[in-house]
Amino acid sequence: SAAFAQSNVTIYGIVDAGLVSERGGKAGNVTKVSSGVANTSRIGFRGTEDLGGGLSAVFLLESGFAADTGVGDASGLFQRQSYVGLVSKEAGSLTLGRQYTPMYNALVQVADPFQAGLAGSAKNLFSASGASVRISNSVNYKTPTYNGFNVEAQYGVGEQSKADAGRQLGISLAYTNGPLNARLAYNNRNNDVAAAGAPVVNNEYAHNTLFAANYDFNVVKGYFAYSSDKGPSSSPIPNPTAFTATAVAASKDSDTMLIGATAPIGGAGTLIASYIHKDDNEVANRDANQLAVGYSYALSKRTSTYVAYAKIKNKRGASYTVGNNAEAGSGDKAFNVGIKHTF
Amino acid sequence: SAAFAQSNVTIYGIVDAGLVSERGGKAGNVTKVSSGVANTSRIGFRGTEDLGGGLSAVFLLESGFAADTGVGDASGLFQRQSYVGLVSKEAGSLTLGRQYTPMYNALVQVADPFQAGLAGSAKNLFSASGASVRISNSVNYKTPTYNGFNVEAQYGVGEQSKADAGRQLGISLAYTNGPLNARLAYNNRNNDVAAAGAPVVNNEYAHNTLFAANYDFNVVKGYFAYSSDKGPSSSPIPNPTAFTATAVAASKDSDTMLIGATAPIGGAGTLIASYIHKDDNEVANRDANQLAVGYSYALSKRTSTYVAYAKIKNKRGASYTVGNNAEAGSGDKAFNVGIKHTF
Amino acid sequence: SAAFAQSNVTIYGIVDAGLVSERGGKAGNVTKVSSGVANTSRIGFRGTEDLGGGLSAVFLLESGFAADTGVGDASGLFQRQSYVGLVSKEAGSLTLGRQYTPMYNALVQVADPFQAGLAGSAKNLFSASGASVRISNSVNYKTPTYNGFNVEAQYGVGEQSKADAGRQLGISLAYTNGPLNARLAYNNRNNDVAAAGAPVVNNEYAHNTLFAANYDFNVVKGYFAYSSDKGPSSSPIPNPTAFTATAVAASKDSDTMLIGATAPIGGAGTLIASYIHKDDNEVANRDANQLAVGYSYALSKRTSTYVAYAKIKNKRGASYTVGNNAEAGSGDKAFNVGIKHTF
Repeated sequence: SAAFAQSNVTIYGIVDAGLVSERGGKAGNVTKVSSGVANTSRIGFRGTEDLGGGLSAVFLLESGFAADTGVGDASGLFQRQSYVGLVSKEAGSLTLGRQYTPMYNALVQVADPFQAGLAGSAKNLFSASGASVRISNSVNYKTPTYNGFNVEAQYGVGEQSKADAGRQLGISLAYTNGPLNARLAYNNRNNDVAAAGAPVVNNEYAHNTLFAANYDFNVVKGYFAYSSDKGPSSSPIPNPTAFTATAVAASKDSDTMLIGATAPIGGAGTLIASYIHKDDNEVANRDANQLAVGYSYALSKRTSTYVAYAKIKNKRGASYTVGNNAEAGSGDKAFNVGIKHTF
Repeated sequence: SAAFAQSNVTIYGIVDAGLVSERGGKAGNVTKVSSGVANTSRIGFRGTEDLGGGLSAVFLLESGFAADTGVGDASGLFQRQSYVGLVSKEAGSLTLGRQYTPMYNALVQVADPFQAGLAGSAKNLFSASGASVRISNSVNYKTPTYNGFNVEAQYGVGEQSKADAGRQLGISLAYTNGPLNARLAYNNRNNDVAAAGAPVVNNEYAHNTLFAANYDFNVVKGYFAYSSDKGPSSSPIPNPTAFTATAVAASKDSDTMLIGATAPIGGAGTLIASYIHKDDNEVANRDANQLAVGYSYALSKRTSTYVAYAKIKNKRGASYTVGNNAEAGSGDKAFNVGIKHTF
Repeated sequence: SAAFAQSNVTIYGIVDAGLVSERGGKAGNVTKVSSGVANTSRIGFRGTEDLGGGLSAVFLLESGFAADTGVGDASGLFQRQSYVGLVSKEAGSLTLGRQYTPMYNALVQVADPFQAGLAGSAKNLFSASGASVRISNSVNYKTPTYNGFNVEAQYGVGEQSKADAGRQLGISLAYTNGPLNARLAYNNRNNDVAAAGAPVVNNEYAHNTLFAANYDFNVVKGYFAYSSDKGPSSSPIPNPTAFTATAVAASKDSDTMLIGATAPIGGAGTLIASYIHKDDNEVANRDANQLAVGYSYALSKRTSTYVAYAKIKNKRGASYTVGNNAEAGSGDKAFNVGIKHTF
């Protein structure tokens, strides 16, 4: 007979698996079963406790895994997200732990009609890997929303022997008003390395600025985004050896622009499209364009199937690849078909 | 005070721990606290969502661990099982991920009265390790049951640079009719290795065929199984250095036969026995016999205690060991006593 | 809409994160976001099944993690605790797996007003690391309570080629009577090493004896503890290179004494204080004193904030550091502030 467990925790997650077919890289024609094509497969534990007076305690612990092999994230049990903190209706939220950067939240929540997933993922060309996505040892503060505006600020301690080495700070200003959703985000990372017993390596800072907006016209929802990325590691190339034996160096000065749209089709379908242009401002001028189209069909609120295709045109030795939410990709063209189940 | 968590997921698992005493190997007399003697200790998360019209979305994520030390599976977070898919009452189920082979399901569900556990585990002599148990990157399709028959088919992508290198396919035909339960399973693995940048190593295929049946005579349930295993890695030896300093080579051509029985004793007890003969068809002719007896006592539907003993006779340098569900074993005799709790 | 999951398992845990500032070590001034300052961050799964007649089956599986980075315990999935067993109201409990030592339970549950957490943790000077905290492959037996007394006994199998190499046994006698809580614990570890194929290394045993008591005077609760630690690894130094390039050797003969108190302040506050003296009986005579004060404020039964400070005086080259529940510490002074949420 069944018993109901007493608990102050909610288990949630996504299991996403599909077939990915990639073309155009030096690896040749690649066909594989992949995990996390639309949304990275994950399982999490979260809770909220009402402390009275508009104050709550919150926590969230989230593991990533590959649904196709069962392998967990190499970098740790709850490396996707891990935080605890207090949320006040009047004063905002203060959380500590491993958390998304305001920059990445802006990219996924506002800029990209593919929400960083499928072949059309904005991560293929925008700066969105490693420390640009989430950082450990961070304190985040988010204001309540006033007249449609809110601010999110983050400071991540470097925890190196030189006090500010490796520290990262981010801030975003969000505005929501009916059909309009806009956000301006800035990220600044100190790239210095101060290992114990070794001389400090002083590097330039990485600066990223992103403006993103979308507008719901009902028959179609339009998306626009523009980012400026300066400094070392400001915009790493996801797979710098996809086309060449030696790695292509990432640009330290680039701009990226996106225009896109989603449109409901019938009751359950959504058509998604985007065009992204990466403009390299360095002498090598390794620009790239991506054109992507996708379709998602909702079998229910929690389960959907998807199909997508994207194609990148790399110029003057650029090395950008069509990946998806969980993979960097191996070529300049990719096709996806799969299923995503949310629980 | 207690709150009930909202969730679309069920947590389930087994915690199994006991004492294992092994004799006859070069390690001498070994006594240890072990995990997973009857069933490998595990914890899993699974869910089913009704999509209407006889269609459901399903997922399952399962971790293995050692209850005696707390250590998790080396090979990954959900390396036991990890899949997502759709189940239709009329059209069958289609799932993607890391899944059991139809061959192994036949061994555990139909062939072995010990269900691959305790000292008498059929895994001691039958082919049941590594890729013979479960494979990643697989697509599984299972038909509904028609007149007692159903078919399960599996294809696992090798994901190597040569398209079919490492691919594995399996199929089983099951028949159930009242007291009779029969299954025929076939597994075929391409042993080629195509590492990036290296010449392809072409190997022979591994072929495994297993026929298994059991029949419930009420006072006793009889078991029979016969397998034919041909090709490299078609029947790996679980512990090839148990008796010798250098590893004993696995046979590339062997047959294995089992006869066994279970019998209820009183209301809560079950007596289990089996005899297995491994027939090596190579020149070395390294045959082996295993005789095993076990007893399980149900304290409830979810909790039982067990005791078991098995003895293997290795001929002409064969190196088979009495293990259990989670361990390969270190000698040709072993005794188990323990407790299994299912949640 | 929400569904309630059927389950025989309860999920529980603690997420604890804060700021830690350390001074006085060779690493200099260290400021960091830390996890587990008051209680190590953890998530666990446990269950109890009533088998009738006063008998129950129990299990518990507990993972540790760093809330600040999301990284899990290096030593295994459920390395904090992992056991299964039977509990009888009349005959006591018998459990198998990875479990706390009776010695460590006495330290945390009875001896230390800081309950091994915050800057004042008794672990800074008492023997409480590695095998002194929890051991794998152990059988634990705990009697029911008779007239306020109960006994807990533990035996951990070494699982080495020499039968008793690495085995550990522990026992405690507890007495509870109204405001009085007293416990006497003993731990004995065989330090022999018997690696396969190598000669056995015979070492002296480690012996630890701890007496602890606390008494609730209502306005204040007083704590006293005294331990005697003899033999190799009987009292390892948590960070033996905190002040020096070469590691300071741990004493093989020391006594440690604690006096402490907790006092309720207002409805939700608790003041905590302790003084610990480590008395090294070896020729080097590396004594140390720790003075600690802390304050915890309960926002609810499940959520609290804390602040603490401790200072150690190391004598004649002693190398003790002010750590906290999850960290060994880097200096002889530390300040903590943070939040602890229990679910």
